[in-house]
Parts: sequence; structure tokens; C-alpha cells
Amino acid sequence: MTFVNAGTLGTLPGRRDELVAHLTRHSPVLADLGCLQYDVGVDDQQPDTVFVVERWTSAQAHRASLEQPEVQASIAEARPLLSGEFGGFRFEVVGSPLGA
Amino acid sequence: MTFVNAGTLGTLPGRRDELVAHLTRHSPVLADLGCLQYDVGVDDQQPDTVFVVERWTSAQAHRASLEQPEVQASIAEARPLLSGEFGGFRFEVVGSPLGA
Repeated sequence: MTFVNAGTLGTLPGRRDELVAHLTRHSPVLADLGCLQYDVGVDDQQPDTVFVVERWTSAQAHRASLEQPEVQASIAEARPLLSGEFGGFRFEVVGSPLGA
Repeated sequence: MTFVNAGTLGTLPGRRDELVAHLTRHSPVLADLGCLQYDVGVDDQQPDTVFVVERWTSAQAHRASLEQPEVQASIAEARPLLSGEFGGFRFEVVGSPLGA
């Protein structure tokens, strides 16, 4: 069942765009791991926050991705940019009004 | 610029699945208004919450959709199921590590 992780990542002041550049760097391994979509975004009214919405083939695929060396290295590289404030939610997709 | 609205909708106790049925009913008008994707979901650890992630062609298209009679009627129909607790965030998509 398609799984969504929607999150907010607080950054240290002024480091948002560095985190955006990091998160949007092309990562071929993600698709192989079951990532269907990974939107990275900003809201200028919250200048020290990066927003992400990830869609995965399953919650299990998402969990397993976090154990991969490439993904762990990427998280480690991002860490110095982060304030430690995180938000968001996760869910299993059950449908859409747009049809199949 | 693609716009995302990621939200949580609290329901009255036990009314979650009714809200899911309402939100996933096929609505052809949404695509006409610029809605690219509209995932509706659940998390059994939060049994009285419905989760949505909407992608729109622009923030303006999303705002304009809320003025449409069909959309306003749908919101009015959902209101009796809602607890009044809302959460979430909105952002402009700036990229993806999956590539274009």
C-alpha cells in the first residue's frame, strides 16, 4: 500500500537553501528502493524550514531505505544544517478523488 | 510552481471512514481546477484523523478551487464529521532527488 511521509525539517538560520540543494541532488538509489515521489519545497513565510513529501511503495520500503548506506550517508551530511526541529506525519494512502 | 498542501483533519470519534469515503469520491472538477494529485490516507495509530496530500499546478489554483461551488458544497458536506482539529503545512515544490 502506498505510504506517504510528509515532513518539515528545521534548519539553522540561513541554511535552508543548502539543505534544499542537498535534498534535491539526484539520487538514483531512491527509485530502486521503492521511492515513487520525493517533493522538496519551501515557504518563504517560514524561511528556516524545508518541506518534504515522499511517496513510497510501502511503509516497509521506506523503513528499509533508512538502513541503506547511501541514505545514511546522506542523512549524516545533512545533519550539520538542521536545527533539530522536525514535524509532519505519515500515512497509508487509501484513495484519491482524482480516480485511479 | 507546483504547490503542495499536506494536512491532517481530525474527525469526531469513529467517523474517520465516513470522511475517507467522502474525500475519495470521484470528483472530476478537481483536475479541471489544477489538482495534479490528491492522496487521502489513514494511520491506524491515529484512528480519528484523516491525512491528505494535495499537489496543485500553483498556490493560486488551490486558492481559486476553494471558491468553486462544487468544492464549497463538498466542504460543507464534510463539516459534520470534523472535530475542528486541523494540522499540516503548505509549500512550493522546488525540486526532487528523483530527477525530472
